[in-house]
Amino acid sequence: MTFNILLENIEKYIKLDKEEKEFLLSLLSQKKLRKKQQLLTTGMVCSSKYFVLKGCLKRSYTNTEGKERVFEFCFENQWISDIQSFWKGSPSIFNIEAIEDTEVIELKRASIETLLSNIPKFEKYFRILSNEQIFKQERRIKQALSCSAKERYDDFLMDYPKIELRLPQRQIASYLGVSPEFLSSLRNKK
Amino acid sequence: MTFNILLENIEKYIKLDKEEKEFLLSLLSQKKLRKKQQLLTTGMVCSSKYFVLKGCLKRSYTNTEGKERVFEFCFENQWISDIQSFWKGSPSIFNIEAIEDTEVIELKRASIETLLSNIPKFEKYFRILSNEQIFKQERRIKQALSCSAKERYDDFLMDYPKIELRLPQRQIASYLGVSPEFLSSLRNKK
Repeated sequence: MTFNILLENIEKYIKLDKEEKEFLLSLLSQKKLRKKQQLLTTGMVCSSKYFVLKGCLKRSYTNTEGKERVFEFCFENQWISDIQSFWKGSPSIFNIEAIEDTEVIELKRASIETLLSNIPKFEKYFRILSNEQIFKQERRIKQALSCSAKERYDDFLMDYPKIELRLPQRQIASYLGVSPEFLSSLRNKK
Repeated sequence: MTFNILLENIEKYIKLDKEEKEFLLSLLSQKKLRKKQQLLTTGMVCSSKYFVLKGCLKRSYTNTEGKERVFEFCFENQWISDIQSFWKGSPSIFNIEAIEDTEVIELKRASIETLLSNIPKFEKYFRILSNEQIFKQERRIKQALSCSAKERYDDFLMDYPKIELRLPQRQIASYLGVSPEFLSSLRNKK
């Protein structure tokens, strides 16, 4: 039952027969995290991709001033990893940490290799996932380069409707690149 | 001969036999652009991907203040497109324009569909290209959110060694998000 949510996500893009589904399921495992527990620590190699079943995580890094900056949030039905560290085997520059009690499906690097060589159409699935990530990031780059804090906050509310209440204010502020006080003044104007 | 550079690029990631190469080549065409000629105009659908053989292009957008901002530069041996518009068929938010006289190989959207359905291993090639784009963009997001103009300029010189002299100063300034005068003062300090 648990893995059905992931299968539905995959079958939006590629069709799988019964055998292929069983093969995929044999490569997956499940993980539960408590709030504040880390999935990935800066400096370690990101050796798995995680699909969120329940809960919420943040991917963050430490900037040149030694402050934590939230790079992205990840919620139900989304994958999270440090994609560069995952594919290249290089040390990660990110932390991934649960913001709530969280349940994820884990797909290990070695398993993904097995999956891609046995069922090559998964290349398409991961190509599409990568493209979706690019669309999101291009928007974020444009926001970071060209938008005021108010515009970035409005976009954030549009991107993550109803999600705002689940996130600590200081982490939304860190994502937007503003101080918690400034975010609070933006919220009060709404 | 012309297409050999692209074949070499592809064969870093996937192996092609003679027939596959010929099939790919049958889908490609070549295009020459004069300096300042556009490959893509904001509002149009990006219906091709382009591989740069010679020259240099910029992908840019107009910010909320009506000013042009350079999103990325593209040089020899790199692909350029508006990937969201290309895959989704949506109107592009970018212009793509030649900065120098430029030669590109064109792969049309319809041809890429033919290519992927006939030689599915190209999914892997495009998945890897998308991942490379993600790595570049993640760096750019971190720079935009967390680095000083001087750090962004130093990173730019590291990312594009020897390229700086080919680009008009005002376009580097637009890429970095600073005024041309400020860029000039950074250069003078070097």
